[in-house]
Amino acid sequence: MTTLVFGHKSPDTDSTGSPIIWAWYLNEIKGQRAEAVFLGEPNTEAAFVLEKWSCPKPRIVESFEAGTKVVIVDTNNPAELPANINNLDITAIIDHHKLVGGLETKGPIDITIRPLACTATLMHDLMGADADKMPDWVKGLMLSCILSDTLEFRSPTTTATDRALAEKLAAELNLDLSAYAAQMFEAKSDISAFTDAELLRMDSKEYTAAGKALRVSVLETTAPKLILDRKASLMASMTAVAAEDGADQVLLFVIDILNEEATLLVPNDLVKQFAEKSFGATVTGDTVVLPGVMSRKKQIIPALTL
Amino acid sequence: MTTLVFGHKSPDTDSTGSPIIWAWYLNEIKGQRAEAVFLGEPNTEAAFVLEKWSCPKPRIVESFEAGTKVVIVDTNNPAELPANINNLDITAIIDHHKLVGGLETKGPIDITIRPLACTATLMHDLMGADADKMPDWVKGLMLSCILSDTLEFRSPTTTATDRALAEKLAAELNLDLSAYAAQMFEAKSDISAFTDAELLRMDSKEYTAAGKALRVSVLETTAPKLILDRKASLMASMTAVAAEDGADQVLLFVIDILNEEATLLVPNDLVKQFAEKSFGATVTGDTVVLPGVMSRKKQIIPALTL
Repeated sequence: MTTLVFGHKSPDTDSTGSPIIWAWYLNEIKGQRAEAVFLGEPNTEAAFVLEKWSCPKPRIVESFEAGTKVVIVDTNNPAELPANINNLDITAIIDHHKLVGGLETKGPIDITIRPLACTATLMHDLMGADADKMPDWVKGLMLSCILSDTLEFRSPTTTATDRALAEKLAAELNLDLSAYAAQMFEAKSDISAFTDAELLRMDSKEYTAAGKALRVSVLETTAPKLILDRKASLMASMTAVAAEDGADQVLLFVIDILNEEATLLVPNDLVKQFAEKSFGATVTGDTVVLPGVMSRKKQIIPALTL
Repeated sequence: MTTLVFGHKSPDTDSTGSPIIWAWYLNEIKGQRAEAVFLGEPNTEAAFVLEKWSCPKPRIVESFEAGTKVVIVDTNNPAELPANINNLDITAIIDHHKLVGGLETKGPIDITIRPLACTATLMHDLMGADADKMPDWVKGLMLSCILSDTLEFRSPTTTATDRALAEKLAAELNLDLSAYAAQMFEAKSDISAFTDAELLRMDSKEYTAAGKALRVSVLETTAPKLILDRKASLMASMTAVAAEDGADQVLLFVIDILNEEATLLVPNDLVKQFAEKSFGATVTGDTVVLPGVMSRKKQIIPALTL
């Protein structure tokens, strides 16, 4: 039986590249039959990366037959996975997020979670000496995952291991790391094709803070103006998106990659309270700039309070 | 702050030795401050092992202050851990059981689960080249954990990795592996000091099968007669133990290590049904022999059905 390898439902570059990298490893090195698949449409940066490395786009799978052999990468959160995930035959989990609880396996399996910036970095560690066998297109995907998740080493989630590996891969690929990262971020910044609701859900995690069910969304961009020009309609969409998704509020942080700051949209008093209590910010209008805030995992989620 | 390292509430040899091994590693190799502690009284085999390797018995900790830094080994099941486990600062999990769900961490941490027979084997892998620095008493604990969890390689959970490591350690320690294993199993077989209720809970996992909440208990022994001589009072105790622990039924499997078979006590029709439906056994009296059954994880839990 072919093992299906997938990341979370909103594939960013790490959740796009890592399943493909691991399927390559299982097929070519471990002699297993594996296929990378998507649980949703990849974002514009991920689509750019696939094209850059001439990698065919994996098919999107909407539902899985019970008992399907699967490897989960870049998440351990059932909310980001197929509804019947615990009826699938999970054979491995490779992730770099906090343990959420809720996933169950039928027997003992391989689970590796590490506090690295990027799933692909962890995969490199797990491959050991076999990593030397990676062809250029796999190295390219791995490099892309690291640059994306670390925002080219600007994010405080970046570890020395992530950075050293990305620099090694760029050297081996004879690639100008910064120029390539700029191309990736430009691709990610092209949001013209998306509706407001799609933008609010594009890179979003559910999280409860101070008794409020929040959809904590980020948009990482080198062109924040493109998003902030749409702030009125984005804020207007928040109510419907929150209601549809069973949340009390959507928080949208526009992450300015180059200036290393976040702009939080402030549609109402609840968000104003979150901004003031969580980040010590002074809110005067319908947006507030949070200097240095780049990481939902390290800086936003742990801070959220009322 | 000192990190406390512990296994589950009913310390067998692996849950006794592995916390001590890992605390040694954190202290001596990683330069951290760590202390192995127990969540309960170790069993007679584990006590023998500590004495054999001149290892002081770790203190038993009854309750933990919120925020205490801890490493969890040999389990990921909240039911086998302190009640406030999710309010502690879990910094790592090292385990070889199926993922149960229910543990949560505040941020991304080191989690390693592998389908090996023994936690200590996995620790050896995680140490890498530093494993060569283990003093004899740490090697002795590691060997003991493997012999205990594999029943000297008789259990079907045994992997080639577990076996090769145990044989390597025994050679380095200049120890007759089989003679030492026999001493360990003899120590485990001395059940004279325990009440019936203590025996029913000594090596026990909660598990739901066919809608029944079960306490699935095993007693691994080289002297099954010592236990089976007490079968009438053991069966009489099952009702009270099940009621106190919120279970519908206790299943007690007496594992005969040397003859590689299990004897299931059959106090009532429900257990008779489990024996017949799960193992295809023909039950005529108040016990039934299940040839070849050695492992709760691999052979008992997956089979249980009505």
